[in-house]
Amino acid sequence: MAYTTFESEISVRPDDIDMNNHVHNARYLDYVLAARYDQMRSCYGMSMEQFIERGLGWVVNTCFIQFKRPLAMGDTLRVRTCIGDVGSTHAKVDFQILKKSNGKLAADGYFDYTLINAATGRAEKLPQDVIDMYSI
Amino acid sequence: MAYTTFESEISVRPDDIDMNNHVHNARYLDYVLAARYDQMRSCYGMSMEQFIERGLGWVVNTCFIQFKRPLAMGDTLRVRTCIGDVGSTHAKVDFQILKKSNGKLAADGYFDYTLINAATGRAEKLPQDVIDMYSI
Amino acid sequence: MAYTTFESEISVRPDDIDMNNHVHNARYLDYVLAARYDQMRSCYGMSMEQFIERGLGWVVNTCFIQFKRPLAMGDTLRVRTCIGDVGSTHAKVDFQILKKSNGKLAADGYFDYTLINAATGRAEKLPQDVIDMYSI
Amino acid sequence: MAYTTFESEISVRPDDIDMNNHVHNARYLDYVLAARYDQMRSCYGMSMEQFIERGLGWVVNTCFIQFKRPLAMGDTLRVRTCIGDVGSTHAKVDFQILKKSNGKLAADGYFDYTLINAATGRAEKLPQDVIDMYSI
Repeated sequence: MAYTTFESEISVRPDDIDMNNHVHNARYLDYVLAARYDQMRSCYGMSMEQFIERGLGWVVNTCFIQFKRPLAMGDTLRVRTCIGDVGSTHAKVDFQILKKSNGKLAADGYFDYTLINAATGRAEKLPQDVIDMYSI
Repeated sequence: MAYTTFESEISVRPDDIDMNNHVHNARYLDYVLAARYDQMRSCYGMSMEQFIERGLGWVVNTCFIQFKRPLAMGDTLRVRTCIGDVGSTHAKVDFQILKKSNGKLAADGYFDYTLINAATGRAEKLPQDVIDMYSI
Repeated sequence: MAYTTFESEISVRPDDIDMNNHVHNARYLDYVLAARYDQMRSCYGMSMEQFIERGLGWVVNTCFIQFKRPLAMGDTLRVRTCIGDVGSTHAKVDFQILKKSNGKLAADGYFDYTLINAATGRAEKLPQDVIDMYSI
Repeated sequence: MAYTTFESEISVRPDDIDMNNHVHNARYLDYVLAARYDQMRSCYGMSMEQFIERGLGWVVNTCFIQFKRPLAMGDTLRVRTCIGDVGSTHAKVDFQILKKSNGKLAADGYFDYTLINAATGRAEKLPQDVIDMYSI
């Protein structure tokens, strides 16, 4: 099964820059999070808010990032994400962050998300409509 | 009416440092917020969590900061706050941030907080026990 | 003397949202900073990087913010800034943050910046070309 | 070769809390970074500042985190790090974040750091005194 890759554009903000004059490592997680929010709403047809309305939530259980090239002030990024795997209670999302100006890879990796019941905090089986929605 | 000044110690974290190798301006708000949370619980006897349990919340309506001396990696701060004024639906909190190593003033200013009803988001009259609690 | 108001569009990122489900207070400073960087480069014709190349820097000496309406996930902002006053070693910048969807004011206030010599950290007289550049 | 595990205590700040009322995922990277800065100085005998003075720097090339239990407002953490492996131009650091109140594991994983020449940005062979310093 091949899943579709979607892309969001994000601009580096001055407060993302750290003492080394590059984007702070932790902000890469925020860029991927921002891209997922954007793509859930505009590409998958079910926004994070809609998951919350159904009493569901996604929490990260694992995160893996490879930092390839530093990002700097003024950079615009293309953040690509793609479902890597869907399990009974989780979904793995592969990502790539590219520098828009030269198309070069700045970072890649994956986030593995567990679907939870917002009331109990426990893992919840992915409803069939969510599986279908993510199978594009 | 003179109010008591309380103090909390906070250490600069590496992620607080910006591209100029100093603590990022916006983090000063976080230091004051952290000091207030600490002092609400341990000095005033009513934690933010307890306000929330009562269906109340504090939101900042105005913030004023004077940056006097830069803060750097490795600095420990003494964050002093003191009630400056209590009105019918708000409380003004004066603050000072001092560098622990030399006692010098790094920043001062105030936050004016409005008490809100968490359900409606509207301003709420300060209950008498809150006024009493803050009158120390 | 009337100065021109410039505007930059900024989208709220998920990591800007705090425990109250609104944009965290401190992030408003980051939005204004981001707008200034953008406008220095594209509207005033002298980017922050160019100040740095000349051995100069701008540091905030005072910040004043009035929070009018909360900002939330999914909001896009119009951040307007305008020179309020230019002194011998400082420039005051007035700002307004509007919610794009309804044009309503979310926050306003000002930042007062001191021009510094990057090598010494001391206040520096504004060069004439900078005064001219800012007099639009 | 067995390396020593060191521990630093870090308190959650209110601005670390996200819209789900837990510590935001990206802040775990900041906690490990803060622990490493602390331990480089006080346990290994060579602070990040001293690396910088020698024209060296450490950059993260890979980061892996498993989130085990959420962290919340008011939590204090014990951040343990331990050298996992030292290569010719890199050092892998294993970490564990424990909740102080109950000793339970909140997250674990590793950071792989490349030593770079600050002037060129290129990978640099670990000097023998650094290898020795890290071999405790």
